[in-house]
Amino acid sequence: MKIGVFGTGAVGNALGSKLAQLGHEVKMGARAAGNGKAVAWVNAAGPKASQGTFADAATFGELLLNCTAGAASLAALQAAGAKNMAGKILIDVANPLDFSRGMPPTLTVCNNDSLGEQIQRAFPETKVVKALNTVSNPVMVNPGLVPGEHDLLICGNDAGAKSQVTELLRTFGWKTVVDVGDITVARGTEGYLLLWVRLFGHLQTPLFNVHVVHVVVR
Amino acid sequence: MKIGVFGTGAVGNALGSKLAQLGHEVKMGARAAGNGKAVAWVNAAGPKASQGTFADAATFGELLLNCTAGAASLAALQAAGAKNMAGKILIDVANPLDFSRGMPPTLTVCNNDSLGEQIQRAFPETKVVKALNTVSNPVMVNPGLVPGEHDLLICGNDAGAKSQVTELLRTFGWKTVVDVGDITVARGTEGYLLLWVRLFGHLQTPLFNVHVVHVVVR
Repeated sequence: MKIGVFGTGAVGNALGSKLAQLGHEVKMGARAAGNGKAVAWVNAAGPKASQGTFADAATFGELLLNCTAGAASLAALQAAGAKNMAGKILIDVANPLDFSRGMPPTLTVCNNDSLGEQIQRAFPETKVVKALNTVSNPVMVNPGLVPGEHDLLICGNDAGAKSQVTELLRTFGWKTVVDVGDITVARGTEGYLLLWVRLFGHLQTPLFNVHVVHVVVR
Repeated sequence: MKIGVFGTGAVGNALGSKLAQLGHEVKMGARAAGNGKAVAWVNAAGPKASQGTFADAATFGELLLNCTAGAASLAALQAAGAKNMAGKILIDVANPLDFSRGMPPTLTVCNNDSLGEQIQRAFPETKVVKALNTVSNPVMVNPGLVPGEHDLLICGNDAGAKSQVTELLRTFGWKTVVDVGDITVARGTEGYLLLWVRLFGHLQTPLFNVHVVHVVVR
């Protein structure tokens, strides 16, 4: 499958490399073509990898991943172009983190709105699925690094899109993908970051996740 | 032990009853003595139970529990009286939930502050331990209702107070009580409510919790 990855940071690198390893053709998009980090990634990721602008990646991909910093995501996606993303699934991995007050970060939007919803409102013809934002990038692409059962929470408005994303996540090794609801649930999965950053500080490893344990309602 | 419980709602009832069953003397505090719900609780909970004003409960208790609605907690605790709470442990169970915009509720304070911190700042001579706010009241007092391993996250500034609260929680049946850090971590455990309310909507049962799974750092 042809996949466009927006963002050249650690998350874009990890997901882009995993997708290329799985046999997908992956184009990493940045503000300008020839971005140094994107070129370095292409050289490391092999013949399935290429790079270009956000718009190049959006046009190339049948499936798209937003791996930009949350505070820059809307601008990056505007540069990618609504027309180039129309009708496609966008996996939104970003969290609207604000590091300007120091550590741990706060959220630039939370409680009664979310980045996932902002993106879905700005790009109504794109099927936004919020996923992978609740775990660190090593865990995203290798959930077996965390021992035992644990869950990936996803949400979005389009059931078919969530089903396709779930299939892709299974190829990463995710056994339990929980569809928690529509895109407004991103208020919950992004809000969870307020706890995630504290658990990270406490556990002193990014290799953790949560398992939701519950009584089964029949 | 003599315990003061602030609040006459479902949480105060559940915790007050459990504490009385465990042999503690429990006084439930309300805005005025003779509150109908408090009197009904006393009649149901037996000879270990009594009721009075917030100040009565604060004076009575060697240990205190804030089970008032989050939006009303600071006013209730002011009525209880800083002097009556000085030097004592206050388990803050409340979440600053705002139901005025409908369901699911939002938080009146979150992200860069928390109710737990507001209470600690307002009552510096009281040892605030945030605990039990991440699970529904049936689970608070009977964690075995949720199958398998799952964790209770607590935080607060005073290590000795957290240790005493952990011992009390073990008598409720809590096997894993995780001390995540100082009272600022309440931003995380209260912020988690943004996810909790969505999981509640999805799972259709309040009988759930999370288990934090992680690599052990040596």
